[in-house]
Amino acid sequence: MKLLEQRIIQDGKIINNNVIKVDSFLNHQLDTAFLNELGQQIYDYFKERKINKILTIEASGIALATLTALHFEDIPVVFCKKQKTSNIGKDIFESKVKSYTTNKEYIITVSKRFLSPEDNILIIDDFLAEGNALLGMIDVCNQAKANIEGISVAIEKGFQDGGKIIRQKGFDLLSLAIVERVENGNIYFKNH
Amino acid sequence: MKLLEQRIIQDGKIINNNVIKVDSFLNHQLDTAFLNELGQQIYDYFKERKINKILTIEASGIALATLTALHFEDIPVVFCKKQKTSNIGKDIFESKVKSYTTNKEYIITVSKRFLSPEDNILIIDDFLAEGNALLGMIDVCNQAKANIEGISVAIEKGFQDGGKIIRQKGFDLLSLAIVERVENGNIYFKNH
Repeated sequence: MKLLEQRIIQDGKIINNNVIKVDSFLNHQLDTAFLNELGQQIYDYFKERKINKILTIEASGIALATLTALHFEDIPVVFCKKQKTSNIGKDIFESKVKSYTTNKEYIITVSKRFLSPEDNILIIDDFLAEGNALLGMIDVCNQAKANIEGISVAIEKGFQDGGKIIRQKGFDLLSLAIVERVENGNIYFKNH
Repeated sequence: MKLLEQRIIQDGKIINNNVIKVDSFLNHQLDTAFLNELGQQIYDYFKERKINKILTIEASGIALATLTALHFEDIPVVFCKKQKTSNIGKDIFESKVKSYTTNKEYIITVSKRFLSPEDNILIIDDFLAEGNALLGMIDVCNQAKANIEGISVAIEKGFQDGGKIIRQKGFDLLSLAIVERVENGNIYFKNH
């Protein structure tokens, strides 16, 4: 069994069949030594690629992205900011994202100074459900004509469509754990 | 001259006498190898203390806090979340913070599961201006009866009152660079 799967079973709190809380180690309290090991796994998978930058989104993606970047040789992380309102024209790329959790729309922005056609990007986030945040990050990369070398998330919810959508677009998506379903208080993972 | 001072002079963008943009390495694009060196400096200063947890605030504090935590032996980071509305009673500590940048108030929250009287906390943030975010984090630590062992920020704006307020309260505050003033396009640091 994989490292992250073990940890989800050990410390994840099943709220209902749709929601597992992992805020004791992944997205509120951060187990940095553990996230560093996950960063190693992402690095091992993508290390042969010509990746020069990691793109993530505030706030929960930042720690994993940062610790993954450390394993590469001196590459920066850029994190997309979440805003309420559109800022078009202010030297930023932006994309509209619908939040699965809150059902509200927000805007993600990234400065045009930090994404360019010379960039070979690895996109990282903590969770993949319907894929909206990833699609927003793909969108800003496309606007910048940056090349996307790969995408990695810690936890994919395999019973939602995000992973399928991202893979059908041809992206190399590494999910460190794929939750297939939650049933009677048990968590089942997809073997892959 | 200190590492961070050199970097601010090299890559900081002087917007006006009050504002230096450091978003190319500290708070939008993150130079992770460099932040790791800053984390080493914070560790070197606080390593003799009995620190078991780092508290920071989303989003810009997370990377530096995470990389500082790596230098300690396996300690977690907890990041306070920023909210628009109060959630009192929902198993969280919360505190009201006034943003210097936007002049608006927001609420910071942290789960009661992740702050307790057993905790010896190091508080970390990227910037210290008027000190409101730090005071909010001190407030939630006080609510949790957690012990604050120290506070560290990357950049202190020495011409604003935050540093003075925090030090007068008796906290051991390590600022990796203190900007004394910006004048005619030059940045002057406080020797300390």
